[in-house]
Amino acid sequence: MNIGGKPYRTIWLGRDGVSAEIIDQTKLPFALDIVSLRTLEEAAFAISSMQVRGAPLIGATVAYGVALAMRVDASDAGLARACEALAATRPTAVNLRWALDEMKTALAPQPPEARVAAAFARAAEICDEDVAACRKIGEHGVGLIKAHAERKRGGTVNILTHCNAGWLATVDWGTALAPIYRAYDEGISVHVWVDETRPRNQGASLTAFELGAHGVLHTVIADNTGGHLMQAGLVDLCIVGTDRTTANGDVANKIGTYLKALAAKDNGIQFFVALPHSTIDWTLDDGREIPIEERDAREVTHMTGQLADGTVATVAITPPGSPAANYAFDVTPSRLVTGFITERGLTMASREGLSLLYA
Amino acid sequence: MNIGGKPYRTIWLGRDGVSAEIIDQTKLPFALDIVSLRTLEEAAFAISSMQVRGAPLIGATVAYGVALAMRVDASDAGLARACEALAATRPTAVNLRWALDEMKTALAPQPPEARVAAAFARAAEICDEDVAACRKIGEHGVGLIKAHAERKRGGTVNILTHCNAGWLATVDWGTALAPIYRAYDEGISVHVWVDETRPRNQGASLTAFELGAHGVLHTVIADNTGGHLMQAGLVDLCIVGTDRTTANGDVANKIGTYLKALAAKDNGIQFFVALPHSTIDWTLDDGREIPIEERDAREVTHMTGQLADGTVATVAITPPGSPAANYAFDVTPSRLVTGFITERGLTMASREGLSLLYA
Repeated sequence: MNIGGKPYRTIWLGRDGVSAEIIDQTKLPFALDIVSLRTLEEAAFAISSMQVRGAPLIGATVAYGVALAMRVDASDAGLARACEALAATRPTAVNLRWALDEMKTALAPQPPEARVAAAFARAAEICDEDVAACRKIGEHGVGLIKAHAERKRGGTVNILTHCNAGWLATVDWGTALAPIYRAYDEGISVHVWVDETRPRNQGASLTAFELGAHGVLHTVIADNTGGHLMQAGLVDLCIVGTDRTTANGDVANKIGTYLKALAAKDNGIQFFVALPHSTIDWTLDDGREIPIEERDAREVTHMTGQLADGTVATVAITPPGSPAANYAFDVTPSRLVTGFITERGLTMASREGLSLLYA
Repeated sequence: MNIGGKPYRTIWLGRDGVSAEIIDQTKLPFALDIVSLRTLEEAAFAISSMQVRGAPLIGATVAYGVALAMRVDASDAGLARACEALAATRPTAVNLRWALDEMKTALAPQPPEARVAAAFARAAEICDEDVAACRKIGEHGVGLIKAHAERKRGGTVNILTHCNAGWLATVDWGTALAPIYRAYDEGISVHVWVDETRPRNQGASLTAFELGAHGVLHTVIADNTGGHLMQAGLVDLCIVGTDRTTANGDVANKIGTYLKALAAKDNGIQFFVALPHSTIDWTLDDGREIPIEERDAREVTHMTGQLADGTVATVAITPPGSPAANYAFDVTPSRLVTGFITERGLTMASREGLSLLYA
């Protein structure tokens, strides 16, 4: 998608051909910093520090991380060590493991001397596949928005989203936002309610930034607000992403997603989850089995933003001595999900629905 | 309740006998600033700027505001003007109107020359009545916490609360927190999950402060977190306050309360609302009739906290150019409320329940 009219991806091969470049998302929305990843350790840090985040982008970064590691040690032991280091960066996103499996499958049969080239090639493919999948999610999801536009006789369609499942969470297009970008490109009048998404504020800092940079109408709201908007008839549908989808259709997504799904159900509003197949974890029957990442309490007790003079600063927002807890995800049971928007089409949020497309 | 071992109220008569003193809650938790209110205008500003907030404390401040106005103009026209100015400060809290009615009832029959003394006397009474009512709420609500403590064989009872309905929202004791202070005083092991409560962060800045200052165990969480905690069995009951309660038992409280009530219902967890009778609006049949205050978008786009050097600073947390919306309250339908904790006892969240106690 565009920033200031210029098309970007979130990760791409460096000009030297042996590095990966990323947008440092911890600096958004106040600075557009491009960071070069040259080693496995830099790739792992980019994931754990959330310079890159979002399930599909984590997968792409993991792929490049393996490629960078192969340049140092392309032996079987080196491959195993790289996979182990990357697997430890984030516990919830299943794409991470999916991308590691893809890389192992691509590299294990190759002799070590062929692995660097093979790894960079497969990483680039994984990126291109992600872009294609997200574009397809947009194509399959835009009909849902069109239906509301027709029902409202061309009136603006109000869509609520939580966290960032936009192009910044993927390589391009996004998952939850792909149908919205597609609708925008087709001239449908859309407006997005952007949950600020505490802690870390990925909605306020990333979703608002990318929608604004591309030109899509949006309004930032506190995470507490969606229920009232739904009660007041100000939300036509919800679309969110997922970090891990279990075989029965439960979804683990940024903490707070479950609360919005409850409110949508209570108000008869559609609640869709957009996902590429790489977020599906067929090994888990039920969302209650998903490990929920606990992150540093400082993400709750402190907030980073921009002072009036333009410098970026971090302020404490809780009393000294008050402890805080920081659970990063929650699980939305499939019973609250109207349907899935996937790269293969729309389907029900159930084992049957997923099997129809992916069996 | 105590701050550093010293008992405080939120509002009290100044030593000069003709002013009211308040804790400036916009400065908490980083500074304990006492502000003297000497005029109607200062009282109105204290309410509209949220130096004081919380339905019962707004009522008490309104009472003193009328008293301060009487010193300048105790005529019928002066009384009417004072009431009009104070009525315009905040639209949702019904205590505001209740306190104005109380003051009019006390002052209208008096000759103008008797109104200053009568007004200060009635304001002091309103404060004492609020303290007594809140103490009673604590006495009636503590049994609910005791029942959980017994069920858990003395294990810690985990209570989730939203916003600030503690002593800082009233004159003393609080509404939702009164049973918790009472339980603490009785030696019951309690721990409070404190929703940070965006925008304005009254949970992170006020509830965490007052619980910590009094010595009650607590943990600050993002507003998104409560649903996951309930799914994980980490919440025994919820207790919140209310800014306005309609005759059918619907409650308007800080935005986001509705989402927690939905999650409590979905997980079979008790959801109690604590209230003094002054928050009941018998003129409204249904919560959908309650006007919902919209506040300055800057409360969403900016955040105030403390820099590492101890100075207080405000940072922007949204991209320049991204609009924001700031709805201050939502309505929780009575069907989601387990019961009311009032100064007259426990009752059902319904017209029948309220009539039992207040008919």
